[in-house]
This record gives sequence, structure tokens and C-alpha cells, in this order.
Amino acid sequence: MPRYSITVEYDGTSFVGWQVQAEGASVQGVLVKAIEAISGETCVVRGAGRTDSGVHALGQVAHFDLSKEWDAFRVGEALNFHVRPHAVCVLNCERVPDTFDARFSAVQRHYLYRILTRRAPPVLDAGRVWWLTQALDVTSMQAAANILIGHHDFTTFRAAQCQANSPWRTLEGFSVTQDADEVRLEVSARSFLHNQVRSMVGSLKLVGEGKWTPGDVQHALDARDRKACGPVAPACGLYLDRVDYAERH
Amino acid sequence: MPRYSITVEYDGTSFVGWQVQAEGASVQGVLVKAIEAISGETCVVRGAGRTDSGVHALGQVAHFDLSKEWDAFRVGEALNFHVRPHAVCVLNCERVPDTFDARFSAVQRHYLYRILTRRAPPVLDAGRVWWLTQALDVTSMQAAANILIGHHDFTTFRAAQCQANSPWRTLEGFSVTQDADEVRLEVSARSFLHNQVRSMVGSLKLVGEGKWTPGDVQHALDARDRKACGPVAPACGLYLDRVDYAERH
Repeated sequence: MPRYSITVEYDGTSFVGWQVQAEGASVQGVLVKAIEAISGETCVVRGAGRTDSGVHALGQVAHFDLSKEWDAFRVGEALNFHVRPHAVCVLNCERVPDTFDARFSAVQRHYLYRILTRRAPPVLDAGRVWWLTQALDVTSMQAAANILIGHHDFTTFRAAQCQANSPWRTLEGFSVTQDADEVRLEVSARSFLHNQVRSMVGSLKLVGEGKWTPGDVQHALDARDRKACGPVAPACGLYLDRVDYAERH
Repeated sequence: MPRYSITVEYDGTSFVGWQVQAEGASVQGVLVKAIEAISGETCVVRGAGRTDSGVHALGQVAHFDLSKEWDAFRVGEALNFHVRPHAVCVLNCERVPDTFDARFSAVQRHYLYRILTRRAPPVLDAGRVWWLTQALDVTSMQAAANILIGHHDFTTFRAAQCQANSPWRTLEGFSVTQDADEVRLEVSARSFLHNQVRSMVGSLKLVGEGKWTPGDVQHALDARDRKACGPVAPACGLYLDRVDYAERH
């Protein structure tokens, strides 16, 4: 069956998350219904990352199979018509080989986490950032992020309900930058554990506030214990930015 | 009476505009009520720019007088509490001299206009950009913008209901830049005519699409005739970015 890959943007605010749940609207569910409206077929839509409720995507990737050959551009256009009025859109639709799997073919995932640091609450970026009223020490946060780069046992920064077989992951990059009153954390890895980015950001925030030193992050990592993690950062600041595939790049 | 100046951010989507109207919520009205809640006084809040319904602000400036001396920082904090749940916040509150007038003391106003050019509708930026499905020729748009820079009779680019005495204005700068699939127009002047920015952007968009040449913009300007203007750009892409004052900078 012909396989299609789509790049998807969404506002996670009103979704229970990427994955279909018993109750509430999911991004996956909206896409399944839109594909059904176009093709009459109920297919499986598999995403590169299963984002939680409230987490946004600038470039989630998913794939699905249709029984007929369709023009990929027209499938993308039709999906954008049928996903309405949900806060989802298809940025790109491509015909891909049967061997392509949005989840397993991914060679790198890039997440962005946005923190707004100012006294006034976010208005234009409400629901799009983590709002903190105090400035953060970005230099210390970068020093702490550097400790997490590389191949480590991330048990500390992993949700209790994480289903991955191994707590070992390899962070390829983790940058912390400041743009006016916004702190942007960008982190890349082949794959992440459940809640890993938000767990790491939550601990780096403590470093930015001066409550933890970069050394405390080292100790938390070494502890390999969920209890050593700082409070998990809220979902609203997190974006699945981009997913890389060897076959497509 | 002690005078205070505030810098205000707002999402214009759900407002009838800056100014109080007979019906509907206005930014000015929300601020007047918040000041009343704090001080018990009903004061006049005068803004630097009277933005239309749907137009946003990153840095609108307004002033008002209170009968007592208050700590400016605490006034700002209290306003942010009392404007809720409206999409308005106070970024800064300062005690200013009696001679300061948010409207008349302004020496420069800066507007930003955001255009998203891609096939997929905006999701994370829904209501924040003008969505166009085709790419624009930014080089031609800049050439057209350059024609408008300087001291001109802007009758063509002025709303029929504009109440300014003179159609002459001086554009200090007008830049058109591209950032991925977003085209950003930034325009500065001491003051603008009603609908001037949206009128100019609407005509520049025609240039970006190749429907007009920069020479057509010159002819439209020279015509000094509202009918020579291209369709006015929608409010949702426009932001009052910043207002400059000699006394504060």
C-alpha cells in the first residue's frame, strides 16, 4: 500500500496529546478522521513523537498508508481542509517508501522549550511559554546543559510511567540562549525518554534561579533516581520542533 | 496630579480596538476599569496610538493621572492583577512629569506587520499573521517601500474616515525582510494616518505577488486618491511595536 509522510504543526493546548485517548480530542484522532473523510479508509497514523497534552509541534512527522495512489500535494491540501476547525495543519505531505517509519526511521529529534521571564504575564504568547517572573542565569544553565550532553543513564529525568526498555539516551546538543526576555532551550537526540525534556528543563530552571548549581545537576544525573529531579517544567513551553530522517535529507 | 505612563501588550483579537466604543470590550476600557479597581478613581487613559479592532500591541504606551502618589512598580503589578482575564498586560509603569503625554510627546512610532506565506493555514500563529498561500517577492516589496520613505502626501493610503488635519506624513523607515516563510514589514514615523500602515501593506502585497510594480506604488502615491490604493491588509497581522519619547530615552 502506498505510504505517505506528513509534517504537522499543532497547538497542543486543546488536545489530550498526540495519541488517541478514551476521552478528548487528540492530534492523531483528528488526522485519522481527516484521512477517513478523504479516502473512506480508517488507517493507523504513527507519529515520530508522542507529545503530551499541552505540548505543541512545529514539525511533528507522521506516516500512514492508503490503498490507492494519491497525489501527495493534494492529500496535504485536503487534510488541511478536513482537520478544521482543530488547531492542526499539515505543512507538507510526501509519498515515501514502505520502509519509511515516522517513529523508527527518525535519526534525530529536536525539541524547543520557551521560557518567558518578566513580571507581566504572557498575553500574545499565552499558553505558548513557561512564565517566570524573575530573570534566569543563562550562562549557568548552559553549563548545566553541557553536563547532560552525551550518552547517559537518564533515569532521573524520566517519567515514572516511561515505557522505554532502557534509560540510556544520547543528547547530541543542548543549547540555552536568551532573546530579550525569552530563554530558549534547544535539545537534540535520536530519541528521548517520556517527559525527559520537561524534566531536564525543570532542573535547569533551578540552576537559572541560583537554587541549584551545575554540580547539582551532575549529582541528580548520577543519582539515577527520579526523586533527584527538579519539578517537571509545564507542557505549554514545549515544542516538537523538527524530526530528521536519513532518507529525506 | 501625579502622572503615570504604562507600556502595554495586548492581543487585539477580542477587542473592538484600543478606544472605548458604545459596545464591546476595548483595551482602554479594560485599563480604565483596572485603574478604578485600584484607586477608586475613574480616570482618562490616553494611548499613543488608537489601534483598530484586531490590531495587536507589543508596546503601546498610555498615560493617566491619579490623585495620590503611588509606587509606580506596584501600580503596574496591581493593574496586571485587575486586567484579568482580558488579553492585556502592563509591561512597565513609570511616574512621569505632568508634561508627558503618551500621544503628543511621542517622537516615533514603530509598527510591525507579519505575513505568513505557505500553503498550510497558521495554527500557532492563528490570528497573529496575514496568511497568504504564495511566496512574495521581498526585493520588489522593499523597492516599493523605499518609494514611500520620506515626506509625502499619503492621501492614497489613508482611511476615508481619517480625522487628521493634514495627509502629509514622514516615514523614517520601512523595511521588508524574510524569515523562513514569514515576511516582516517594519515601518517607523512620528505619526501615521488612520489605516496608513494596513493600506501601504495591502499595496506592497500586490507588488510582492507581481501584480503591481514598484512604479505602480509611485503612481498610487502620486494620485493622492484613496481609490488608487490596493485592498487594505487585515488587522490581525499588525502590531504597534514600540513608541519612542525624547524624555524617556
